[in-house]
Amino acid sequence: MPRGKVDVVPDDGLTTRQRRRQAVLAVHTGHGKGKSTAAFGMALRAWSAGWPIGVFQFVKSPKWRVGEESALKALGAAGGASVTWHKMGEGWSWIQRPGTERDHAAEAAEGWAQIKRDLAAQTHTFYVLDEFTYPMRWGWVDVADVVATLADRPGTQHVVITGRDAHPDLVAAADLVTEMTKVKHPMDAGRKGQQGIEW
Amino acid sequence: MPRGKVDVVPDDGLTTRQRRRQAVLAVHTGHGKGKSTAAFGMALRAWSAGWPIGVFQFVKSPKWRVGEESALKALGAAGGASVTWHKMGEGWSWIQRPGTERDHAAEAAEGWAQIKRDLAAQTHTFYVLDEFTYPMRWGWVDVADVVATLADRPGTQHVVITGRDAHPDLVAAADLVTEMTKVKHPMDAGRKGQQGIEW
Repeated sequence: MPRGKVDVVPDDGLTTRQRRRQAVLAVHTGHGKGKSTAAFGMALRAWSAGWPIGVFQFVKSPKWRVGEESALKALGAAGGASVTWHKMGEGWSWIQRPGTERDHAAEAAEGWAQIKRDLAAQTHTFYVLDEFTYPMRWGWVDVADVVATLADRPGTQHVVITGRDAHPDLVAAADLVTEMTKVKHPMDAGRKGQQGIEW
Repeated sequence: MPRGKVDVVPDDGLTTRQRRRQAVLAVHTGHGKGKSTAAFGMALRAWSAGWPIGVFQFVKSPKWRVGEESALKALGAAGGASVTWHKMGEGWSWIQRPGTERDHAAEAAEGWAQIKRDLAAQTHTFYVLDEFTYPMRWGWVDVADVVATLADRPGTQHVVITGRDAHPDLVAAADLVTEMTKVKHPMDAGRKGQQGIEW
């Protein structure tokens, strides 16, 4: 589709300029690779636009995405837009009492509570909620609360949510939904993951 | 799939360590968003791994990917791995005679010739051939030559090719193929593309 060409002009009373500034809720789902990777690729554009970036990783292993983390943090340190990176896997940074006995459901709920605070305060302009479909799916966060909070978020805050099996209500609420499908993967042929490619 | 878990162990005489260092040929295809964005997200990991990065954009408009370009160039300037960015849309940088009458087929062939030189010289470790499926599809570059050159590339050079409708021979030759499928797009609802999200 050529850039700037739209199929229908919405009857929403907005000017093109206003429409260009609408907040986007994007979902990258499916069982293929590239869901999170594309979200971090979008963060490159957000950084170039000067937007403060907040990343919330709802993943078990703190090792994941170390390449993206170090690169985006280097960009944040290079000046311009800030990059804030939160990881559930090693206990959220704002929580002072990370226990040895982890309760993932409680941790996920804590993460979502922080996102709500940040959205209310308009702390960031671009949010990556990495692997957030899983706590939604497992009932660790309330789907209706997520959808309502995102629908009502103030200002122009763009949010990208990644993970397999996005909840239908999230898909319905999203502006942009892409499904990544695996056609072929090196591990099918017995290859191992490798640094620089997988993490 | 858990990281490091493989379905089959290949009978290739390689150790796990050697297999972890195999060069990867990845293809991001399909009609959805995120093909190039995920390729540039992979470049974040490549940069973190210290790999020299070469980007070749086979696109008509030099405006595309300006966000990714400025962010990745900022990373290259921040030290560590180099980032080299070539754009067909404004005439390849190594060509001193960009004509006003453009011949896109000849330009695409020039781009591919440079990639061949870089692969032979092992100039980069991570290559993004952005929108390269199109010149392959339109006969501007020879598919058999592309596949053979990539199969025979020396050393450990990772290549990601993006674009719709990847040629079956390219898919067959690739290690990792992901199809991005559009589920929903803002332009369906008459939204305009916007800075920071689309470019």
